[in-house]
Amino acid sequence: MGPTLRSLHFFYNHRSSLTEPEDTMTPPKSKNITWHGGVVTRQDRERAAGQKGCVVWFTGLSGSGKSTVARRFEQLLLERGRVSYVLDGDNIRFGLNKDLGFSPEDRNENIRRIGEVAKLFADAAIITTTAFISPYRTDRDNVRVIMPEGTFIEVYINAPLDVCESRDPKGLYKKARAGLIPEFTGISAPYEEPMSPELELRTDLYDVDACAEQVLSYLDKRGFFNVA
Amino acid sequence: MGPTLRSLHFFYNHRSSLTEPEDTMTPPKSKNITWHGGVVTRQDRERAAGQKGCVVWFTGLSGSGKSTVARRFEQLLLERGRVSYVLDGDNIRFGLNKDLGFSPEDRNENIRRIGEVAKLFADAAIITTTAFISPYRTDRDNVRVIMPEGTFIEVYINAPLDVCESRDPKGLYKKARAGLIPEFTGISAPYEEPMSPELELRTDLYDVDACAEQVLSYLDKRGFFNVA
Repeated sequence: MGPTLRSLHFFYNHRSSLTEPEDTMTPPKSKNITWHGGVVTRQDRERAAGQKGCVVWFTGLSGSGKSTVARRFEQLLLERGRVSYVLDGDNIRFGLNKDLGFSPEDRNENIRRIGEVAKLFADAAIITTTAFISPYRTDRDNVRVIMPEGTFIEVYINAPLDVCESRDPKGLYKKARAGLIPEFTGISAPYEEPMSPELELRTDLYDVDACAEQVLSYLDKRGFFNVA
Repeated sequence: MGPTLRSLHFFYNHRSSLTEPEDTMTPPKSKNITWHGGVVTRQDRERAAGQKGCVVWFTGLSGSGKSTVARRFEQLLLERGRVSYVLDGDNIRFGLNKDLGFSPEDRNENIRRIGEVAKLFADAAIITTTAFISPYRTDRDNVRVIMPEGTFIEVYINAPLDVCESRDPKGLYKKARAGLIPEFTGISAPYEEPMSPELELRTDLYDVDACAEQVLSYLDKRGFFNVA
């Protein structure tokens, strides 16, 4: 079941006046095609895609499984014909945010930009997952408030620190313990747990599949895959 | 014809070892579903979407018709079941780039970020259109070089300055002539024409539909809508 192009009648409801400079140009030749105020709306995109755009915001310690669950979630979505994208360190750090360091201001700006980009993806009707530690409540809440109501889904990827540290996939905890990484979240910098996340996934208790499927189920129940 | 979920066999070709922390977790229960290196690739997304991601970069004077042609192009794509998105001043200026002003550095950074975001959208298999004056060749070329070969399509939206000025949809030329806007492109700041754009559209000679359809035809001929 791929996303299908649903009824396009909504385009042709009314002929509204144009406000752009091409007012003065020749109007479209076919009488069947008129303008929808000249602009395709988010709702148009969502109907066409057969899904609602949203931001699934993963937060949690390094090694908690954010990227792994996000990637598995992406795979499940793709298997179901959904359009999705994952923003994570791999595609953000050396691109959009390559000018940012690790000062408090730069960390805030890092999350702010990721939030703004995620918002654009959601506006494009895409199921958008972000996988960043994002340790501060304020930063996460600042992203939540720029999103349309109900489209920001905070997912706490939770595993005890000692479990994350024992996984240590990139050897970062070892370096942090050796004092080679200053202000490492969970060791020498705080991680502020979400107060009321939409979902909490215990990756020490459940496997990757179960976690990813729980996110899928959450979206399904809230109608993100069923656009009227 | 909506984008359809094409053959997903490519997922199940090989079972590769996992390198993420969840190595130690319970493997997926179904023997039918194995990991594709844990990661969905751009090619996977493109096959699923039935289209190739790209960046259609509109450049031209204020009033040349960038946004209008881009919005019409978006509509044509949506009617054909294509997944697309337009980045323009409306969704960038007050969001991602709200911290940027109009100094030379900020202008460069403005285009750099737009390029990086467009790259992410294209990586998500989306037909991505950008509609910014982007007057400097260097800035545009800096975006071109970060994209995979052949996926950056520079479109020169060309209309003579006097035509753009007579349209003056936002009254900006009037203000610029009155000296109220310093360094206004075409009046008091340079516009560097593309040397060899993939497409040039004369919006003073052709109507919006014809221009938008030419972009569509360009993508069609180069196989962007036909993923093997």
